Amino acid sequence: MSPGSPLLLPNGAHIFNKLQNFLRAQYPQFGYKEVITPNIYKKSLWEKSGHWENYAEDMFSVQGRGATGQTENAQVGEDEEFGLKPMNCPGHCLLFRGEGDIKSYRDLPVRFADFSSLHRNEVSGSLTGLTRVRRFHQDDAHIFCRPDQILSEIEQTLRFVGMVYDTFKLGPYKLLLSTRPEDHFIGTEEEWSRAEEQLTTALNNSGREWAINKGDGAFYGPKIDIILKDAMGKEHQTATIQLDFQLPQRFDLQYQASPQELEAGPISAGDKNIDPSMRRPVIIHRAIYGSLERFMALLLEHYAGVFPFWLSPRPALIMTLNDDPELLAYAARVKDTLAGLPKTSPGQEKPTPQKLHDTHIPVDIDSSARTLGRKFHDARQKKYNHVVIIGPEEVVSKTVRLQVTKQPNEPAMQKILGGVLEREITDGDRMKGSINVTMSKEDARKYFVSLVEELV
Amino acid sequence: MSPGSPLLLPNGAHIFNKLQNFLRAQYPQFGYKEVITPNIYKKSLWEKSGHWENYAEDMFSVQGRGATGQTENAQVGEDEEFGLKPMNCPGHCLLFRGEGDIKSYRDLPVRFADFSSLHRNEVSGSLTGLTRVRRFHQDDAHIFCRPDQILSEIEQTLRFVGMVYDTFKLGPYKLLLSTRPEDHFIGTEEEWSRAEEQLTTALNNSGREWAINKGDGAFYGPKIDIILKDAMGKEHQTATIQLDFQLPQRFDLQYQASPQELEAGPISAGDKNIDPSMRRPVIIHRAIYGSLERFMALLLEHYAGVFPFWLSPRPALIMTLNDDPELLAYAARVKDTLAGLPKTSPGQEKPTPQKLHDTHIPVDIDSSARTLGRKFHDARQKKYNHVVIIGPEEVVSKTVRLQVTKQPNEPAMQKILGGVLEREITDGDRMKGSINVTMSKEDARKYFVSLVEELV
Repeated sequence: MSPGSPLLLPNGAHIFNKLQNFLRAQYPQFGYKEVITPNIYKKSLWEKSGHWENYAEDMFSVQGRGATGQTENAQVGEDEEFGLKPMNCPGHCLLFRGEGDIKSYRDLPVRFADFSSLHRNEVSGSLTGLTRVRRFHQDDAHIFCRPDQILSEIEQTLRFVGMVYDTFKLGPYKLLLSTRPEDHFIGTEEEWSRAEEQLTTALNNSGREWAINKGDGAFYGPKIDIILKDAMGKEHQTATIQLDFQLPQRFDLQYQASPQELEAGPISAGDKNIDPSMRRPVIIHRAIYGSLERFMALLLEHYAGVFPFWLSPRPALIMTLNDDPELLAYAARVKDTLAGLPKTSPGQEKPTPQKLHDTHIPVDIDSSARTLGRKFHDARQKKYNHVVIIGPEEVVSKTVRLQVTKQPNEPAMQKILGGVLEREITDGDRMKGSINVTMSKEDARKYFVSLVEELV
Repeated sequence: MSPGSPLLLPNGAHIFNKLQNFLRAQYPQFGYKEVITPNIYKKSLWEKSGHWENYAEDMFSVQGRGATGQTENAQVGEDEEFGLKPMNCPGHCLLFRGEGDIKSYRDLPVRFADFSSLHRNEVSGSLTGLTRVRRFHQDDAHIFCRPDQILSEIEQTLRFVGMVYDTFKLGPYKLLLSTRPEDHFIGTEEEWSRAEEQLTTALNNSGREWAINKGDGAFYGPKIDIILKDAMGKEHQTATIQLDFQLPQRFDLQYQASPQELEAGPISAGDKNIDPSMRRPVIIHRAIYGSLERFMALLLEHYAGVFPFWLSPRPALIMTLNDDPELLAYAARVKDTLAGLPKTSPGQEKPTPQKLHDTHIPVDIDSSARTLGRKFHDARQKKYNHVVIIGPEEVVSKTVRLQVTKQPNEPAMQKILGGVLEREITDGDRMKGSINVTMSKEDARKYFVSLVEELV
């Protein structure tokens, strides 16, 4: 019903939201401000940005139903043609211009982040799973900076990329610099050289492997691509950092020059038609995950389906050993405790709002009448990080039997578990290779919360 | 450039995201699962759902650029006509059907939540601020339940509404039940009566004022609207709870009947063409905020611009008393501490990822050379919850001078502040009516975190 637009079921949405929130949590320290921008803009905006001319085939066009698309520039919007956005940049240029006062050199850099859905009309033959789609979300951002800020912005962005990829234990990756095309480019050769010098310095300082793709930059600016090698050695282009000298001209973006800039004198070619006291910012387009949908596909491969606990839509499965009503009732209480739900129940009394900083763990329960063997088989197939067994003994002793299933960061989890239990986890705690311990349900909750707090 | 599509700057996006996260935090206890669904669907979906026929004027149509829209039901999507979604229901029906196995009566209710952007082509004359727009986001959800679950679902939803509105101290509000239209309706009179009975019971049990709008229900089901009275006594329709007997038929949704349902016998009119062992679920459309954009507008009025601390995009403004470099450096450190930023700096060394549960407070700083009087005037105008003054004395004693500005829940804040300082806040702590205390920057941070943890 919507080819190339993935529908994410609850588990997919869980991972998507965690990825988004993780990046959001990093934005304050890197100085980004999130904004929310429209999905559709008038044709005239896309003409101004150059998309209508250069990106025609990849865009979707939008009209009010029954509209003719003929009423150009009309005040009334009913009969106009819109474009469904393939990128956020034109919208962010509007924000930079419209945010209020005239910008001073001191106000820069301005960094706008945006998680909007984007649409690109890829031909249907090219659509592939989550990696090549028509509707996707980027962890998109645009940095509006002075030319002399390019170096520090690129360095900071490369550090941001490194920090994020380390968190997911992704890598190694290499950096690829694409430079000025031989013939067709905007701006002066000097501007390009100065920008490329700053990119080169940033790459040298990054301590990462990097290579050059001479002449492969876009006509509007040089760029750095991040090429990630996956477990199979296959390369994927994920993050991108792209300089843009063009959009600031098309949208007539300006800021009041610094004393140094005024002293440095002549305005470069593209800036000829602005006031001598003003300068144009440079735009840096950058994405760290790239497409969130594609990043999810990469992570699925990377983790072979067993997500780290904080990201996992299946952190724990509770299994009941029989269908005794008392046992089932206890298992339901265990589920609520492990998940971190409030003690009130929305079904019975006045519910209590959950706090924003409470850690919710989406614990599942299998209270079916199937055998334990069958339930274990299922849990393994579904890649749960933990299995929690509730039998008659656990009901009496008010405990749970927790099993840590095989997964990448098991050693760290073992240490945290030992910390909660205040003893070392030994070989005696293993059964068929898995860690197996009996603990109170409150301790199990404490262990889960510690996993989130310590391992992200 | 996009009439009726609000662009949210950082402060607006901050409030939007907090509202969204607050509701998300409540979903687990109420049993909702969030999903992520496409913005565009083929025309044929909208024909099936009835939107193409009944909602024509309010929809935007989408096509690949240069497409003719003529290739009906083609496998390749390039030349098709799509509809930009005005509602999430058809997408959720696809999910309910496609989620895998045949649903059993035991699997219900299924509750899908969705924050997607929605587009409705309102005539330009009707557009007003954030209250009547073309592009907006609902805290939308659809509950797929058995007919015998209507009562408990409605009761739970009414409790959810009450909990949320209490949190924002919104109200009073009244509930309005719209019942079966005289002539044009689907389903049997008996089905309607049974559903309306359950709604009536739920309303009686709610302990709230409610009224009846006889015959004013949609042809596809009865509904309950929540009518909120604002500070001026003006009424706003915000939340809505809407039963739907129609979409389950249009999308042929089914579940395996329970033994009780099988025993109860004959299948109702709308279900005649399905297997006798199957039944159709009822859909409950429900939104608690309604449109997030409109809810933001309501809150702006409701709080007269001074948002509660946890929601506020301007929780605190640091003011410097002079431009001594040491003082400015100290003020910058205070800002990072109060905001809760990691100790590493992304500009200098290997940055540390911020944890997902860390509480970030978007503290601002005014280190301009303007007079303190001018800075205070600005802070008042911008409705900051706190002013934090850094002068030479504070630099020496490593403290901050914190002022709690006038705001609605000042008494509660005063109590929390006293808790952090381990003494009572007295009249001696007031200056011109505002609380003024000197404290360490760590205590100030502790106070801010407590405000978020205790007052949400």
